[in-house]
This record gives sequence, C-alpha cells and structure tokens, in this order.
Amino acid sequence: MLGAAAKDSFADEAALGQALAELTARLGNKVVMSRPVREQHANVTTFLPNEPADAVVFADCIEDVQTTVRICAAHRVPVIAWGAGTSLEGHVNAPYGGVCIDLSGMNRILKINTDDLDCVIEPGVTRKRLNEELRDQGLFFPIDPGADASLGGMASTRASGTNAVRYGTMKDNVLALKVVMPNGELITTSRRARKSSAGYDLTRLFIGAEGTLGIIVEITLKLYGIPESIVAGVCSFPTITDACNTVIQTIQCGIPVARIELLDEVQVRASNAYAKLSLPETPHLFLEFHGTEAGAAEQAERFGELASENGGGPFTFAGKAEDRSKLWQARHDAYWSVLPMRPGAKAVATDVCVPISRLAECVEATKADIVEMGLVAPIVGHVGDGNFHTTLMVDVTDHADVAKAEIFMKRLVERALAMEGTCTGEHGVGEGKKKYLLAEHGAETLEAMRTLKRAFDPHNIMNPGKIVSL
Amino acid sequence: MLGAAAKDSFADEAALGQALAELTARLGNKVVMSRPVREQHANVTTFLPNEPADAVVFADCIEDVQTTVRICAAHRVPVIAWGAGTSLEGHVNAPYGGVCIDLSGMNRILKINTDDLDCVIEPGVTRKRLNEELRDQGLFFPIDPGADASLGGMASTRASGTNAVRYGTMKDNVLALKVVMPNGELITTSRRARKSSAGYDLTRLFIGAEGTLGIIVEITLKLYGIPESIVAGVCSFPTITDACNTVIQTIQCGIPVARIELLDEVQVRASNAYAKLSLPETPHLFLEFHGTEAGAAEQAERFGELASENGGGPFTFAGKAEDRSKLWQARHDAYWSVLPMRPGAKAVATDVCVPISRLAECVEATKADIVEMGLVAPIVGHVGDGNFHTTLMVDVTDHADVAKAEIFMKRLVERALAMEGTCTGEHGVGEGKKKYLLAEHGAETLEAMRTLKRAFDPHNIMNPGKIVSL
Repeated sequence: MLGAAAKDSFADEAALGQALAELTARLGNKVVMSRPVREQHANVTTFLPNEPADAVVFADCIEDVQTTVRICAAHRVPVIAWGAGTSLEGHVNAPYGGVCIDLSGMNRILKINTDDLDCVIEPGVTRKRLNEELRDQGLFFPIDPGADASLGGMASTRASGTNAVRYGTMKDNVLALKVVMPNGELITTSRRARKSSAGYDLTRLFIGAEGTLGIIVEITLKLYGIPESIVAGVCSFPTITDACNTVIQTIQCGIPVARIELLDEVQVRASNAYAKLSLPETPHLFLEFHGTEAGAAEQAERFGELASENGGGPFTFAGKAEDRSKLWQARHDAYWSVLPMRPGAKAVATDVCVPISRLAECVEATKADIVEMGLVAPIVGHVGDGNFHTTLMVDVTDHADVAKAEIFMKRLVERALAMEGTCTGEHGVGEGKKKYLLAEHGAETLEAMRTLKRAFDPHNIMNPGKIVSL
Repeated sequence: MLGAAAKDSFADEAALGQALAELTARLGNKVVMSRPVREQHANVTTFLPNEPADAVVFADCIEDVQTTVRICAAHRVPVIAWGAGTSLEGHVNAPYGGVCIDLSGMNRILKINTDDLDCVIEPGVTRKRLNEELRDQGLFFPIDPGADASLGGMASTRASGTNAVRYGTMKDNVLALKVVMPNGELITTSRRARKSSAGYDLTRLFIGAEGTLGIIVEITLKLYGIPESIVAGVCSFPTITDACNTVIQTIQCGIPVARIELLDEVQVRASNAYAKLSLPETPHLFLEFHGTEAGAAEQAERFGELASENGGGPFTFAGKAEDRSKLWQARHDAYWSVLPMRPGAKAVATDVCVPISRLAECVEATKADIVEMGLVAPIVGHVGDGNFHTTLMVDVTDHADVAKAEIFMKRLVERALAMEGTCTGEHGVGEGKKKYLLAEHGAETLEAMRTLKRAFDPHNIMNPGKIVSL
C-alpha cells in the first residue's frame, strides 16, 4: 500500500522464513545467515547501532541479484545492497531486517574502450583495483573518496573526494547504468555516447539514491588520460581565512587545480606525528596540479603567487613521485592519524559543504565551537568545492559523549544550511542525515522525493529507512 | 486516472472555456488568445505541423505560473512552457491544445555571486543577454547551442553545443532549480553548494524533462572566469576520417580543447559563400583553446602536430578577436548558409551522437546515404562529443520530399543506435524523436520513464505528447 511503510508492512517471520528458504533453494551456499557475516555487513563506521540483515547473499552475476530481488519482492522482504562497507552514514544497516546483497564478487572489468575513454564494469570493482587495471593503458578514473570503496557504492552515494574540484563527482563521471528494479526487472539507463537528450535522466536518478530505488549492477564510467605532468606540494598559511581566500582566488583565476585540500593546524599536528611529516603546525593546503610539463608548472607558480599575496607560502613541491605518494597517503590517513589523540574513542566524520565564499566563516565558526565544547575534532576539507569534514573523536560507550557529539553535529549542519550549504557534500544521507533533510529541502521538496520513491518502490523494500521514510 | 491519457482525458470545451475565463479573471491582459500569437508560440522550426495552444499566458513572475498551472490542473487543461521558441523537435507544440506559458518576460538576473562563480536567474533570460551582463565582471556562461535560446529552455532540453567538450552540458552547469509542480506547488531542488549528496537528484530530473514534469521558474547556474587567452583557428583535412582521428587523439592526449567543430566540404562551400570565407573546400575543424597565454598557445601547437600527423593542416590562427568572432559567426550561421543551396526549401536539423571511436564511420556512412538519396544536407558536428548534425533541406510542401527526409532520418538514427549512440545528443525528444525511444532504451527503461511521468503528473497535463505517451 502506498504511503504505509511502517515495520508492519514488511514480511512477518513466516514470510521471511519462506523467502530465505526459496533463496537457499535457488542460490545454495551463496546465502549465508551466520551472525558474524551479517554483522560485518551492517554499518560499523559511525556511532549508529549495528543493525544486521537476516541473511547475506553473495551475488556473482546480475541474475543472482534479480533472483534475490524477485523473491524478496514477492514476500515484502527488505533488500540492502552492499559494496565494500566503507559508507559513513549507516547506508548498509538493516533497521527492518531483510536480505543484504553483497556485490563485492561482481568485480569484473567488462570492457575498456581506450579510444572513447570509457569502461564498463561490475559494481563490486573498487577504485584502486580499477586504477591498477587502467594504468598500463595510460588511463585513470579520478574520483577518490579516500577509502577503497566499490564503484557501485560510490555511484549510489554520489561520492566525490579530493579530485572533484577538477573532475567532478560520480554524477559527472557515469555515462550509463544497468539497474535491477524493485520488481526484479533489469533496465539500462542510457548509452555509451558522451551526451544525450533522449528522455529523463535515469542515470542521475540512481546516482545518490543509495540503493533505495534499485540496485546498480553495471556501470559505464568516463575515463581520463594520465596527465603528462603531476605537480604536488604543500603550502602553509597563518590562518584558515588566508588559506580559504587563496582557494577562492585560485578557483576564480581559473587555475584548473586537481586537488586543493585544507588541513587545520590540529590535523597537521596529528599528521606530523602519524605520517612522519615535519610541517609547521599551522593551517595548510595540500595541492596537486595536472597538465603538460609547462602547464602544471605554470599552475603551481600562479598558485604560489596567490598564496604569497595572502600571507601564505612558500609553496613547497613534492618533487619525486614517492614524495607525492607520501603526501597523499598522509592526507588519506587523516582518519588513522587522529585515533591516537583520544585513545579508545571512535573517529566519526562529519560532512558539510557550503558556497566557497562562506567557507572560511563556516570553518572558523566550527573551530570555535570545537574549542568551546572541548571536543577533539581536527578539520580536513576538499575546499575547492566548499566541502569540509571534522574527524570527531567520540567515546561511543559514553552516552553523554555521544549526546555532545550529536549536538555539535546538529549545530554544524544548521550553520552550513544557514550559509546556503548542504548537510552532506559527499557521504550521503543513509540513516545519519535523514533528520536534516526537512530543514535542508523543505516539506514540498521532500514530498517530491517521497513521490519518486513510492513510484519506483511502492512496497518500500529497497533499503528502507534510508533517505526518506514513507 | 493513471495510464489513461488519450485526448479524452483532457478538458472538454466547456471545461477549457471555464479555465480560460478563470485565467482571464485572475491575470487580465496577460492572457492572449489571438490566433497569430498562438501560432507564433507553437513549433515552427521543423516540418512538424504547427499545433497552437488555446491561449498564451505571458507570465511575469512565479505566482503567475503557479496561478496558471493551478487553474489548468483543476480543469485538466494541458500546460506548455515556452522560452524563446528555438527548440527543434516540436517541444512547444500543443497537440492536445491547452495553455502556453510564455516565460520570456521572466528575464531578470536575480543575483551574480562572483566569489562563488554562480548566478541566479529567471528562466526567460537568454544566453547572449546573460553573457552581456557577466562580461564586465570577467565571467561567462559557456553553454552555447548556437541559437539565442532561453536558459529555461536550454535546461529543459539538456542543451549543449560547441563548448560542451570542455564545459559539459546543461546537466553539468545547473546547481539548483525552482520548479512549479503539476499541482502548482513550488519546490527548490537543491542548494547553492557546489555539490551535495542530500537525497535524490531532483535537479537532473527536471533538466531534459522538456516541461513534462514541472515548469522551471528559477535557475542557479555555474559560471566561469573569462579565460586569459583564447586562441581560435581552422584546420583543413583531406577526409572526414582524418579529421575525426585527429579529434580522437586530441581528446585522448588530454588537450582541453574548448571547441572542436567539424564542417564537411559541403558545409565549407556553403559557409564560404554565405560568410565570405575563403577556405579550401575540404572537411575542416574549427577550434578554440582557452587558457593562460602560454597554455592556450601550447594546446594549439600540440593540436597542430596531431593534425599534421593525420595529413591535415596547417592550423591557421584567427589572431584578432574580430577574426575569431567572424569564424564562430560563420559556424553559427551554418543554418542560414545552407538555405541558398535549395531555395524555397526548409532547413531541418538532425542530431545524433555516437562514441567518438565510431564517429568517422557514422559520418562517412551518412554522407554516402546523402549522396545515394540525392539530398542536400551539409554536415556540422560538435565532434569532441561525437555529436553531429545534418542540415537537411526539405520542401515541406512536397509530401514525397518529406517522406524521403523521414526515411533518411530514420536510417541515420538506426545507424547511430547500432553504434551505441543516441537519437538526440542535445536537441531533445519533443514530438520528433518519440518514435525512436523504444529502440534506443528498450521497453523496460521506457516504462521506468513512464512511471516517473505518472508519479509527478498523474493527469498528464504538463506538455502532454512529448518524450513519452501515457
């Protein structure tokens, strides 16, 4: 029934048992019900509780996914898609039970079209694996959320990361999808042509839908030639505001910076200790420029001039490839570097994004709040897009600590929304951000999202409890 | 009723009369019913018949649009949005009658945020007008479909054009929309932050929806700094294949070309005559490079080397700004230049797009077909994206000539689809391309599009008869 998707509308125990029996009869030992496997497939990256599914299906092919969805649909059993388990907002939790479909075994690279700069892959391929396969052909896929996420998961959360300022997000880099719909039918959203105006943009409909409208089972991705020259380096600034002003001017001048990452002085201190860097303990930008030899050098030089005008610098090159790797490894290890700052606590990532003109103000106000509330929460950010994260250290066994963290996160989101920003730049909604969507979008827009969900998934079996509740 | 949207489901004469009376009572002389005005607002750019609405409402503001949609919804009267009337597939025809909403009076530029490189505009603003307003601030909006279309229309057809190879299409350059829904409610699809993962991508849902899901009444656009240096020029090639191979290599090498336009030798001949050029009558690429002084020069030089390796060249610079203007004016005037080739005939633009590895093959086969069928149809193309057009000269008073044109167009689309291409790269579906969507997408995907349409517009009043029939 439309609009009635409380827990009661899902399969009761008998129907669930029937569904699991049918699944096992059809898929044999691809269906696993052991508790450790089920728990491992539920969310573990936040302080949200672990809510395991009733079974995990290890899918090998599109037919496995269709079989599972059809059986689950017939019995009103929830279906939760799982890629690599790196999501940060409880996307893979199963609050109403059901069946988790593990797509990590669907990890074939089906076709690389070097002339067209695209490839066709299964959703379980991870970004590192893809780039390893592409390297020999002089190609790469730029979207880099840090974690070695699956491309299906990255598409489903509209992921982005450090390279998005130049190469866009997942929404900009997917040409077409194959999707198993909530009734088990398979659709292809678009074709391999670089652009099309042939009807509704179904591709973008499923990107960022977090598996709530269907399950992505094949992806056609745009690729890029590995740049002839990559120049990376770091630049110190007296204040966050100086760094942010430099970012704004860099973007305004049209310098096509490939990465421009902010680390506040707290994060720099942590990274110095963890990654054996020896940076001055001030706000820093980590940068990368892609182009021809002359082009990348020119970009770096111009950036250096802007930094200097804003009281920053000098821009220090990471000349050798291994220095560059060390730099970005340190950036990606920000999460790990923070752990020793509060032993026993868990690192929880926040994720707001504001127009860049408001970035300095938003980051400075957030830092003031961190100090005032006595929190441990270094800041990193994909600042070319106005997107930043605090890595908030939380003792998840202590209710008062969790409550304090939630107050901080609520204030952070409200601050971003007041600046025309969003509650999530790239992590997605999942369970964690649902409560902010009304304030962000308003009731009418949220109702339009519900209309979409009801139309495609009238029984609300696809990842229920995520994005919008019916 | 869902799924039953034949002509009978719309307002009968009495209900239509009632709706028009209510509209006039509310909006006074903004409601115009004279035949010339109604005909001028129906399609005139193809050989599709002119199908005028029953009235045209000249909207001044969002409330006018809401009032009109609410009254029309109550009486089941179709609503057709109109921007500048430059669409090419009969998008603004009213096959079931109804009310056309002319949005050209909603042409205010509401806000230009120079620091954030974005602006907020009403949908009737045209691209030329926007760029005139932006120029003083050192900014520009790159999407250029040739015609001086309205931005609302460009968003609604997912337009692109000559700059798309570098700057993307409308789908890549809209941050947020305000949309009047089929029930008259106003929604805001997203916020001004550069990226967001906060729920379904409603922005992309309305881009390319051709007014069939709602009416775009406000647009937040990405802007770009005017490049420090713009280098343009032309390059001659012995064959289409040589030109296309050069395009593929240019893209593969990562040369960030801003425009790369193919003109076949027939088009070059026409442009020589019309625009007083003196190019050799061979296939040509018209190009533009954006960057720093050194960067743009380097791009042009590298392109010249690739062209020469493929038997083309030399690359001839259009050194002065006026030479550059003349060049692009000649390209944009391709439509007019073709008219003298068959006096009395109408120029009808086709619009397929294929993966660029198949482009040469597709263009050559199309040229062979043109010769075999004895047609006058020069070819131009945004070849960096694999998108090309034939400007087909048709005597629309001669049924046999129209029938022949339709056979040619059908074969062209089938050829593109067989090469993993699309029936429309940028013009949209409208009435003209509906018949190809089944072959392009398959029945299941088309049904997903219908599901979307039914969910948002259950009474099928928004631009009925376009994209999908219910």
